[in-house]
Amino acid sequence: MYIGGIEAGGTKMICAVADESLAIVEQTAIPTTTPADTLAAIFDFFAPYPLAAVGVGSFGPIGIDPQQSTYGHILATPKAGWQQFDVVGTLKAQWPDTELIWTTDVNAAAYGELRLGAAQGKDSCVYMTVGTGIGAGVVRDGALFQGIGHPEIGHTFVKRHPDDTYAGTCPYHHDCLEGLAAGPSLEGRTGIKGQDLPDTHAIWDLQAYYIGQALVNITLTLAPEKLILGGGVMNQPHLLAKIQAAFVEQMAGYMDTPPVEDYISAWALPNQSGITGCLLLAQERMSEK
Amino acid sequence: MYIGGIEAGGTKMICAVADESLAIVEQTAIPTTTPADTLAAIFDFFAPYPLAAVGVGSFGPIGIDPQQSTYGHILATPKAGWQQFDVVGTLKAQWPDTELIWTTDVNAAAYGELRLGAAQGKDSCVYMTVGTGIGAGVVRDGALFQGIGHPEIGHTFVKRHPDDTYAGTCPYHHDCLEGLAAGPSLEGRTGIKGQDLPDTHAIWDLQAYYIGQALVNITLTLAPEKLILGGGVMNQPHLLAKIQAAFVEQMAGYMDTPPVEDYISAWALPNQSGITGCLLLAQERMSEK
Repeated sequence: MYIGGIEAGGTKMICAVADESLAIVEQTAIPTTTPADTLAAIFDFFAPYPLAAVGVGSFGPIGIDPQQSTYGHILATPKAGWQQFDVVGTLKAQWPDTELIWTTDVNAAAYGELRLGAAQGKDSCVYMTVGTGIGAGVVRDGALFQGIGHPEIGHTFVKRHPDDTYAGTCPYHHDCLEGLAAGPSLEGRTGIKGQDLPDTHAIWDLQAYYIGQALVNITLTLAPEKLILGGGVMNQPHLLAKIQAAFVEQMAGYMDTPPVEDYISAWALPNQSGITGCLLLAQERMSEK
Repeated sequence: MYIGGIEAGGTKMICAVADESLAIVEQTAIPTTTPADTLAAIFDFFAPYPLAAVGVGSFGPIGIDPQQSTYGHILATPKAGWQQFDVVGTLKAQWPDTELIWTTDVNAAAYGELRLGAAQGKDSCVYMTVGTGIGAGVVRDGALFQGIGHPEIGHTFVKRHPDDTYAGTCPYHHDCLEGLAAGPSLEGRTGIKGQDLPDTHAIWDLQAYYIGQALVNITLTLAPEKLILGGGVMNQPHLLAKIQAAFVEQMAGYMDTPPVEDYISAWALPNQSGITGCLLLAQERMSEK
């Protein structure tokens, strides 16, 4: 028997098959188009492998309460065709004897980083990805952290930088964290795509201000042992030090944390945190049986 | 044997003795002066009672990591004489055979509300007090929520109301939540003490905007089953509905919650949440032995 992982993103679905020791047998990336075509391609990929368990880390927001009819569904998303799509139900119909583990892509990534990445040996961490959007996954006491919903820290409100008048890009909240600091805000403010902006551009200080502030708020609320940054933003190697400095300045000595160079770090599994977490979740479900 | 509770506030120490069924035998309030005088009065009050366990919910920030030398201490506080004072060590020296449970005043209050108040039957809640300062306690999976520190949500940053130019009162962060919305900001903005302001004053809408926004951020981060408001602000009965409306407006439909009238409520144990939580924590420690 094998285990599977599906990191379900709005652009692509990373799918991996591993043996019970977590050694990857085959991995692919499937473009996210319509649900029907995408799922058909996913089932084709996994067809040769009998699957004992599959971990799915999905873009969200998603329904996570097994008592509600929305469980296993993608909820409000701008991604055409995916609103209210029943991912878990569709997988279950195809794989009736396979254990399914269902969480957010960022929760899976946080779990991957905790077990095999930047937070190894810790019991808690928050993983924040900054790219097209901003999302955060939370692990606490070694397990995924979810409540009446999963964390949606990307949409929390932040204090504006005094010099910032940008309206923000979030269709729900305009100037929440994602609206002010995700990738599209870089191009929205400057007319230049993030990857083409020089390291010396002042906008990086502004983005570091918001991300550092969000990490202060996370620390004052969740007090995790470790904060991990991933996503497209980590393609800017100069940014981590700016974010660490912005965190220290805005925390203003209020809560003791480990030294900031240890406390806030980049992902240790670049672009693999999510799929690694999905496979780990599947592997553990199997070992519980 | 008896159990004790100490709700240690910056103004007064509420002390209570109860029997093992939680029936209160004697309760008092001792003014918070110097540590030596205050502790002497506390020991006098409890002297007639052999104490199996005492729950202490303290003003903070406090040291909660048993591995660190600051455990049991009050940390950075503006309260003269109490900085770095070793509360737990002093109690332990006086009561060597008594079990001590040590947490924040707001964590104790959250626990009291969960077990016997507004969140009865739930596994998780956040209790936020708005008075001289703003603090929040968190219960999750039926237990106190703490990480590398205890929650300090009162000092998280918030988005300013577009019409608000007030500098804020927080000595650390100026315009964090506490700086913009705690009691002193009411008088600071208007020159009138909060309790003397008419219900129709526009400042209540501003305060509701910030508190409602903080509850949005808490929901998107911790996703608790229930939010409970207490403290001096709840002496303004008109304010709860304003806060609920501000929450709904700023959440903008992003995360599903229970109906706001159920989700956000006032304390069910006015001015007793904290001491009740302290006694409950002591009672449970006893029953574990």
